Amino acid sequence: MDPQTYMDVATVVTKLKMYPYFDIAHYTLMCIAVREDVLPQQGSSTPSVPFSRKHPLSSWLSSMLICFAGSIIANMLLGEPLITPFKDHQSILTATAVWYLVNYSPFDLVYKLAKFLPVKLAICVLKETQRAHKVYHGVLVAAKLYPSSYLVIIMVGTLKGAGSGLMKNFDRLIRGIWIPGNNEILQPSFATKASLVASIVFLCERLNLIAVPHPLIYFGIVLFFVYFKISSVVLGIHDPFVPLENLFCAIFCGGMWDALRRAASKEPTKEEENKDPRNDVIKSKDEKKKD
Amino acid sequence: MDPQTYMDVATVVTKLKMYPYFDIAHYTLMCIAVREDVLPQQGSSTPSVPFSRKHPLSSWLSSMLICFAGSIIANMLLGEPLITPFKDHQSILTATAVWYLVNYSPFDLVYKLAKFLPVKLAICVLKETQRAHKVYHGVLVAAKLYPSSYLVIIMVGTLKGAGSGLMKNFDRLIRGIWIPGNNEILQPSFATKASLVASIVFLCERLNLIAVPHPLIYFGIVLFFVYFKISSVVLGIHDPFVPLENLFCAIFCGGMWDALRRAASKEPTKEEENKDPRNDVIKSKDEKKKD
Amino acid sequence: MDPQTYMDVATVVTKLKMYPYFDIAHYTLMCIAVREDVLPQQGSSTPSVPFSRKHPLSSWLSSMLICFAGSIIANMLLGEPLITPFKDHQSILTATAVWYLVNYSPFDLVYKLAKFLPVKLAICVLKETQRAHKVYHGVLVAAKLYPSSYLVIIMVGTLKGAGSGLMKNFDRLIRGIWIPGNNEILQPSFATKASLVASIVFLCERLNLIAVPHPLIYFGIVLFFVYFKISSVVLGIHDPFVPLENLFCAIFCGGMWDALRRAASKEPTKEEENKDPRNDVIKSKDEKKKD
Repeated sequence: MDPQTYMDVATVVTKLKMYPYFDIAHYTLMCIAVREDVLPQQGSSTPSVPFSRKHPLSSWLSSMLICFAGSIIANMLLGEPLITPFKDHQSILTATAVWYLVNYSPFDLVYKLAKFLPVKLAICVLKETQRAHKVYHGVLVAAKLYPSSYLVIIMVGTLKGAGSGLMKNFDRLIRGIWIPGNNEILQPSFATKASLVASIVFLCERLNLIAVPHPLIYFGIVLFFVYFKISSVVLGIHDPFVPLENLFCAIFCGGMWDALRRAASKEPTKEEENKDPRNDVIKSKDEKKKD
Repeated sequence: MDPQTYMDVATVVTKLKMYPYFDIAHYTLMCIAVREDVLPQQGSSTPSVPFSRKHPLSSWLSSMLICFAGSIIANMLLGEPLITPFKDHQSILTATAVWYLVNYSPFDLVYKLAKFLPVKLAICVLKETQRAHKVYHGVLVAAKLYPSSYLVIIMVGTLKGAGSGLMKNFDRLIRGIWIPGNNEILQPSFATKASLVASIVFLCERLNLIAVPHPLIYFGIVLFFVYFKISSVVLGIHDPFVPLENLFCAIFCGGMWDALRRAASKEPTKEEENKDPRNDVIKSKDEKKKD
Repeated sequence: MDPQTYMDVATVVTKLKMYPYFDIAHYTLMCIAVREDVLPQQGSSTPSVPFSRKHPLSSWLSSMLICFAGSIIANMLLGEPLITPFKDHQSILTATAVWYLVNYSPFDLVYKLAKFLPVKLAICVLKETQRAHKVYHGVLVAAKLYPSSYLVIIMVGTLKGAGSGLMKNFDRLIRGIWIPGNNEILQPSFATKASLVASIVFLCERLNLIAVPHPLIYFGIVLFFVYFKISSVVLGIHDPFVPLENLFCAIFCGGMWDALRRAASKEPTKEEENKDPRNDVIKSKDEKKKD
């Protein structure tokens, strides 16, 4: 692609309107996530009656909270009314229609269609584009409210992009599920980490630390999101940040000192060898991904 | 009753002051609910020491949160200070006095009196009148803040009328009890559903969709609340909405399509017959009511 | 000490700047508390890999929430943005540095140093001075916002002084730990009770009920905090309020009536004697302290 075409495409992507197609893709993925997030013992075999049949209200509210999780949590942190997303009838009605189709369509057609690989890939591409849009606007909003609070700006940007993860514990509670040992901060997903990186990039752009035209940065972030999402769906590479994290942990989060301490103690017993923290970090992270 | 008398009574009911009698009735029922909401294993036999003796602070805060649950949750959603109900010394002192009498009166006199059927009925009538008042003022407040956001208006009205249900999980946590599989959204109580209906009626009135004088609508809602509460206390009819809900679920929430799918599959095995979702919905709802 | 010297010392204490030494002492104690708050089964033997190695993000966020718990909860109740503490880069960076040193210092030097009794005592003295400062400023802020709401003023003062206790349940959830049967309201710690007393004293001072110069009151509160903290660390006296509480419970919270009722029932069986509520209250409280 010659640079001018690339720049043109980037400018178009920057000005894309999210409603309706990108938002619908987002709502679809969120409603499917809610539908599939059942207790392991319930999910092991197909349950006799799906949750959406037994508890429509809980299923609806839970889906809405996840669809608008980023706004709700960001509003809470910024002291705005939590109910703001429910003011916008158009979004709520669209999300409700998507929720209805995902859960109650005849012969489960919409759900099966959305799980069909080519369709799923298209939805994911739309959703990741919307994620970039949300991160960027989160950074804009926070930077307007707190211009010099970089940490706040990054946190709001990340939340807008990946709020559904943080909302998950509370959202499960609405559906009567409670898994305290599992949350987004304990085991951050790739979406959260990528949103964090994107927030930092957008913040650097605002601070004029990156001398690249805005459409290029924005389009780069979109491509970054889309690329890793597709590789996750198609190739099963869930988290390309893991090696970097392990390196970071080994250097800064005690790995080096633990190794030094082991070296200092004269006779490392067998047990201590088994307790090599760095291996454990890598192992435990890998195990989590597989679960 | 001739129409003029009815209209006069309705006007009087519309202008009733809630403090002190109606509020006291509300606080009494809430404090009793907190007192009786103990863990099943603790409640099976009379526990040696009641919770209120062991943990007065927890019992008091828990009762206050339930007494003012509607305001607290509505304030949270609307971005107002959560602490607002604690500003009003008169209400807090009244609620504290009620809490004290319910939990620590000599020979448990107040508690036993409040559980005595005729007294209980009187308290319930007062409480349901107060509920109508709270729903109406919730709708008024929300409609002033967000005039065209119908969903927000209905949610705030419902919350003001039946906030204690939503607060229950959090409130139990303060008393050291945690039952994640049970919440108001999963199994909405009749009070919540009735508040929802009342909110919708008041909203329709605001939108001039109901051409009936305001006192009549308000009095009608009060009668509706009182009638079903009394039939629940005296006759044990807990939820007159269940048949409507089952019909709604059967038509819109998948029942019809599930039936079609079963009809489409040629040989329904015995297992599939047992899995008839519509029956299950009805059964599971009935079971919940009995529990 | 002659009165003039005492007054001079008190005036100096009143005008002490909290940053950096007092704040660092506070952050150190909070980070140590988070580090040591692991599940009992994990903590029984030294776990193979410490939590901070496996989940640095969770450990950091958890420590930050506890360090700024008072502000966050007070902001929530007063309807201010929850994120405000994260605006102040200096505090966050200091707290992060302390968190890093406590968790990852070479050979665990900082942690071991902070646990060494003389150092621990010095840190505790600094921390209790900071607590008095925070309670006083909490009372000031709340009294400016709600001048005549005494309950709100006392609540905000207490929260500012002992917010970490209330945050604990939520904070544990971030680290994947959930112990619903244990919270600050169910079993208030001495820090919470002392902050409550200090808030009441500062409120009385504002209402001109105490005719003593402000520096003396402030210094008195500081001495009160420091004295009981040192006696708790050195002598193991954890809660000097317990006898007062038991007396209060016996008189006002049912103990007297329960005794009367037992006296009224003609034949107290052996079981009933064992169930003497007053003894149980004392026993259960003592047992809790020992745990």
